[in-house]
Amino acid sequence: MNINAQMVQELRKKTSAGMMDCKKALTATEGDLEKAIVYLRKKGMDAAASKFNRQALNGIVGSYIHLYGKIGVLVEVNCETDFVANTGEFKEFVKDVAMQITASNPKFISREDVPNSIIEKEKEIFYAQVEKSGKPEPIIKKIVEGKLEKYYQTNCLKEQEYIKDNSKNINQLLLELIAILGENIVIKRFARFQLGEEILK
Amino acid sequence: MNINAQMVQELRKKTSAGMMDCKKALTATEGDLEKAIVYLRKKGMDAAASKFNRQALNGIVGSYIHLYGKIGVLVEVNCETDFVANTGEFKEFVKDVAMQITASNPKFISREDVPNSIIEKEKEIFYAQVEKSGKPEPIIKKIVEGKLEKYYQTNCLKEQEYIKDNSKNINQLLLELIAILGENIVIKRFARFQLGEEILK
Repeated sequence: MNINAQMVQELRKKTSAGMMDCKKALTATEGDLEKAIVYLRKKGMDAAASKFNRQALNGIVGSYIHLYGKIGVLVEVNCETDFVANTGEFKEFVKDVAMQITASNPKFISREDVPNSIIEKEKEIFYAQVEKSGKPEPIIKKIVEGKLEKYYQTNCLKEQEYIKDNSKNINQLLLELIAILGENIVIKRFARFQLGEEILK
Repeated sequence: MNINAQMVQELRKKTSAGMMDCKKALTATEGDLEKAIVYLRKKGMDAAASKFNRQALNGIVGSYIHLYGKIGVLVEVNCETDFVANTGEFKEFVKDVAMQITASNPKFISREDVPNSIIEKEKEIFYAQVEKSGKPEPIIKKIVEGKLEKYYQTNCLKEQEYIKDNSKNINQLLLELIAILGENIVIKRFARFQLGEEILK
């Protein structure tokens, strides 16, 4: 199998691993991109993955106020050093994320944050909606799974389509920033107040 | 189970579903409001799930970012009309309250918001501190009460001394604004993020 430069570039973009490591991984996996990513992860050569384990305690608390105060968002994004927190790229990311939250009203940061009780309840509702169709059980299951995926994409910030560029989601935007700035970056928490809404406890 | 008009109204308010659908849902769920909401969603009869949490209230959501993002505050203050929300006095109050929260780090809005479990725990600690003095019980009680008052003044926004004028507390500032603007004004909620602090759940 011939490993060309384009394939190496593609793998680099996805993992931020070194050029030679990428070539080695692709050779070992006969050019299979997905397998090459796993190969790099196993070897600990996936720079983005290894950055995930470093502590991110610097950063910025940013805000965005929409329509003269009808909606307000507060968000904390962490990075490792004050230096990165002060870069234009980081500040812009914080602002973009605050705008995303304002516009798209996520309930959670990632799907791991959705409580099991909510997942079960949503599934129950989806089942009841689909069951009436009289379709066979395996197809119903697939449809329910699809609806659950859609639920995550709607309600989890990191899975939402980026409002400024719907070719990627927020997690991809985050990974790009990690690759550019070379530090672990974490969207830690957010609050979104919409004027007059009821407070859920 | 008898489904009365008030229950139907309540469900309508929460789901915007039709009168008859609400009655049917409540009958099927034996008057359980939460279950009736789920019932309507399953049937696809909640006309506007998005209206679910909204109430028509006026006011402003304001924010304050301190030290280029080391601390951020989001606050919602409600009033009765858009007219009052647009006055300079109201906007200034929202900003002052956000600054107050930034500087004085309250945990609650008023003393009614402090959970009983916390009050009991604080009292226990205060007692243990004072008991050693060997003072008579009625005096110990008085001292503990005094310490609890101090706790409220430190941790409850409305009882805090106003940082810009310590001759009054935030509640007095609020009452003055109500007198000037002639509407009921409520500090509804706030969030305060300090960079790197641990999140308490």
